[in-house]
Amino acid sequence: MSAAAAQPVAAHGLTPAERVGIVITLLLTAGAAVARYLPGTPSVAAFVLAGCALAGQAWLVSIATEQLGGHLGPALAGTLQATVGNVPELFVVLFALQAHQALIAQMTLLGSILMNALLVLGLVLVVGAARSRDGIMRFSPRLPNDEATLLLVASFLIVLLGVAHVARDPVSHHGQAISIVGAVMILIVYGSWMRQYLRSGRPQEATSEVMRLTLPLSLVLVTVAGVGSAFTSDWFVHALQPTIHQLHISEQFAGLVIVALAGNAVEHSVGIYLAWRQRAELAIAVVKTSVAQIAAFVFPLLVLVSLLTATPLTFSIAPLYIAALFGTAILVWQITGDGEATVFEGFALIGSFVVIATFAAFGG
Amino acid sequence: MSAAAAQPVAAHGLTPAERVGIVITLLLTAGAAVARYLPGTPSVAAFVLAGCALAGQAWLVSIATEQLGGHLGPALAGTLQATVGNVPELFVVLFALQAHQALIAQMTLLGSILMNALLVLGLVLVVGAARSRDGIMRFSPRLPNDEATLLLVASFLIVLLGVAHVARDPVSHHGQAISIVGAVMILIVYGSWMRQYLRSGRPQEATSEVMRLTLPLSLVLVTVAGVGSAFTSDWFVHALQPTIHQLHISEQFAGLVIVALAGNAVEHSVGIYLAWRQRAELAIAVVKTSVAQIAAFVFPLLVLVSLLTATPLTFSIAPLYIAALFGTAILVWQITGDGEATVFEGFALIGSFVVIATFAAFGG
Amino acid sequence: MSAAAAQPVAAHGLTPAERVGIVITLLLTAGAAVARYLPGTPSVAAFVLAGCALAGQAWLVSIATEQLGGHLGPALAGTLQATVGNVPELFVVLFALQAHQALIAQMTLLGSILMNALLVLGLVLVVGAARSRDGIMRFSPRLPNDEATLLLVASFLIVLLGVAHVARDPVSHHGQAISIVGAVMILIVYGSWMRQYLRSGRPQEATSEVMRLTLPLSLVLVTVAGVGSAFTSDWFVHALQPTIHQLHISEQFAGLVIVALAGNAVEHSVGIYLAWRQRAELAIAVVKTSVAQIAAFVFPLLVLVSLLTATPLTFSIAPLYIAALFGTAILVWQITGDGEATVFEGFALIGSFVVIATFAAFGG
Repeated sequence: MSAAAAQPVAAHGLTPAERVGIVITLLLTAGAAVARYLPGTPSVAAFVLAGCALAGQAWLVSIATEQLGGHLGPALAGTLQATVGNVPELFVVLFALQAHQALIAQMTLLGSILMNALLVLGLVLVVGAARSRDGIMRFSPRLPNDEATLLLVASFLIVLLGVAHVARDPVSHHGQAISIVGAVMILIVYGSWMRQYLRSGRPQEATSEVMRLTLPLSLVLVTVAGVGSAFTSDWFVHALQPTIHQLHISEQFAGLVIVALAGNAVEHSVGIYLAWRQRAELAIAVVKTSVAQIAAFVFPLLVLVSLLTATPLTFSIAPLYIAALFGTAILVWQITGDGEATVFEGFALIGSFVVIATFAAFGG
Repeated sequence: MSAAAAQPVAAHGLTPAERVGIVITLLLTAGAAVARYLPGTPSVAAFVLAGCALAGQAWLVSIATEQLGGHLGPALAGTLQATVGNVPELFVVLFALQAHQALIAQMTLLGSILMNALLVLGLVLVVGAARSRDGIMRFSPRLPNDEATLLLVASFLIVLLGVAHVARDPVSHHGQAISIVGAVMILIVYGSWMRQYLRSGRPQEATSEVMRLTLPLSLVLVTVAGVGSAFTSDWFVHALQPTIHQLHISEQFAGLVIVALAGNAVEHSVGIYLAWRQRAELAIAVVKTSVAQIAAFVFPLLVLVSLLTATPLTFSIAPLYIAALFGTAILVWQITGDGEATVFEGFALIGSFVVIATFAAFGG
Repeated sequence: MSAAAAQPVAAHGLTPAERVGIVITLLLTAGAAVARYLPGTPSVAAFVLAGCALAGQAWLVSIATEQLGGHLGPALAGTLQATVGNVPELFVVLFALQAHQALIAQMTLLGSILMNALLVLGLVLVVGAARSRDGIMRFSPRLPNDEATLLLVASFLIVLLGVAHVARDPVSHHGQAISIVGAVMILIVYGSWMRQYLRSGRPQEATSEVMRLTLPLSLVLVTVAGVGSAFTSDWFVHALQPTIHQLHISEQFAGLVIVALAGNAVEHSVGIYLAWRQRAELAIAVVKTSVAQIAAFVFPLLVLVSLLTATPLTFSIAPLYIAALFGTAILVWQITGDGEATVFEGFALIGSFVVIATFAAFGG
């Protein structure tokens, strides 16, 4: 494994196939931009174009991130990837709050957490375990356990608010004040984790292949594709609204599944691609840091930022989704906490996501 | 440990004491059959006869299963045992649904899960730990963790349905449709586990004693005793109903404790007997696969099958028992997930079952 | 580490600085006694004097306990410390019940559990991890897992009672009878744990320094300081009531935070002092056994004893605090169950306590 890493590394640059892929992605992105701003474009066409452009950008990020992983180690690469991948959610939620759509904003954040923690992670485990020789995907248990801690701390606050609300405790009238205190505490906990995580950035798995792209080129590709995906996600969401009403889809399902799918296409593809390449450590890092960042950084940050907007965001969400969040934190911890996963455990996560999505489809 | 396994194995056959035991069991079973169908038999007499016959059959299964364990390895032996042991529940629930007794049907399934996961497993841990040299019972953590995953996935769906109901979420009107989707997902997850479990059937512990019975004779004994226990369980349940009303026992307690006790007498005795013989791996396998099978196979299968019967079965159960199911999943995982157990941990499980049974006794 | 332990041990006695400290503590205790019984003393003065006296006693206990740890091994030392430290709570709760203040009594017990399990343990982990060379505090996972089991068993009963109450299950009318059965079961589970824990009392970490105090002197100091802290805690609580009303503090916050802080000052200081001295095993033992003792010994014992008092104590507490108790059991298990902790994990516990205290401050 480390024999290849010890060899001198050469930067061969992009292959011809990759150059073609980049050109196609640029064309799709341009097409999605035209469909967004050209009056009279059918929303379905705009939707398909933006979706394909997103997929192309995701593929581009996946190549560049794997190259970056070799240069920076999985910890930093994973953090970078999760940051770039979370830009779309941040914009979607802020735009939704500006338009007084608090439910879509909450469901988008929740959907990003649940989709990454259940569906994407489940696919990563299925692919990773199926590709390993003995059917068991192995990774360091430290990161999954840290992510379980962050998810439990965030859902602890949300569960307490929900229980106070359902039990009609008078304290539930102070939801916003408690949300602010809770947001600050969660951000402090997240900050102490981030500090520790970045310090420990040991290169856990040596790259087993020649690093073809230079560090600057990898960084440029990641940045361009990440920023591009932010714009494209916005167009995708814009084209989505008319489609929802046309197809009689519930707002819950739209936020939880469709917007979350658009916003997380990047992590989705990268994580599964890395699992396929048997880069277990990096695949887990990409998905896990993304979940932790949304639950313990993006969500509390938006609660504080939204005090300045027309519609304040709080941690008070519907009881059904509180239970879904807490159950997800427990299930993901139980499955990944031992640093081993099998195909069956991947299916358990995917099946749970399908069940939650079914509730959302019925307007739950 | 493996020295004996390496020796040539001889099939000595049944001991005289065992032959006497088999004859007594046959007589008790015949007596229970007569008591069931002879008009005018007091229900208490029929109850006692059927109970003793069940105990005899359980003892017979325990001998044959231990012999089978040597021939087939603990994984297959455990699965066979759990399958044979679950036939009574399957019939009890279907008969109850045909008779429009949905509460008894649900409580019987729930009782089988809780009794095996808490009371029987607790007794297995107490006996196993007390009999080990250093007071710690040791077993592979893989199976307990897989069972925790299955139990968490099944209770995830049930918790979401219960929360939607208590919070009066409009989605709770679609309980049956969601139950069907959930049942299919749980069966897929169970199927992927079963496939993986049967493939990995490594003989984890070599048998430390001479295998006295041949494979065919062991199989015949297990089959006859298992099928017999299915009939006897039915007679036992039939004699039970008048007894319940006579003694003012709540329906919840009847289903959760009494019917579950009848249906699980087999696993009960076998698991504890195996723990006493210090066959920790096999004892855990017998109890654990039984819990996983009822929660993630028998329950969802009956939800689908019951669509054809007069009274459909759903996953919507009373909030009290939803909490009991989820708490049980958490507690059993916490106690057995590390592959070690002490006498105290066995008492913790038994004590929790007594608490739940107390709620049921008060009609909760 | 064990090199020092192998050297001949000499009993040098107290240092001059320690003698001065003891005299100051005695003076503060005398002052607090005067402030308590002298008519016309402002309650704020009595409050500050009693608080300082408690701090002095806590420091004295911490010195003597560390010396005892060398003589008796961490298990016995931890138990002794937790016993001495729990005497204040016992008296506070019984006095409160006598005065028909059931809410203060329950909140004091709950506050002792939550404050030790979250705030004190969090501080211990932060200090212990920050002082270790690689930023990771290491300890045997056995005790944290046993404590998780005890806390889960106790909260299991409390959750079931709470769910029955919120769902308006008729069984909730039998709360007292169920509390009695539950109390007996929890005490049996606790007894089986205590028996096992005291038997295994292996000296897990050799003392790394010269034992300066003899066993009898250490015992005398622990006893005097412990008994003194019981009296002082009472005076502290007495001076507290007028202060609460004067400062418009909610009863929940008073019980959960202020009384709990007074009652747990001893464990608080000792645990953190031991973590600072890098005695990880003993620091964890002091805090953990204290939590287990209150949840699984003091609480159920008081439920049974209170049958003889004017105001019976039950396990039925407000839904918000049931969720807080269960969430605490889960979070503490997740963080300490692997025998390792980092600064971030300590912050996660502290942050969760601040969130719960915020709910209490708003009268939740």
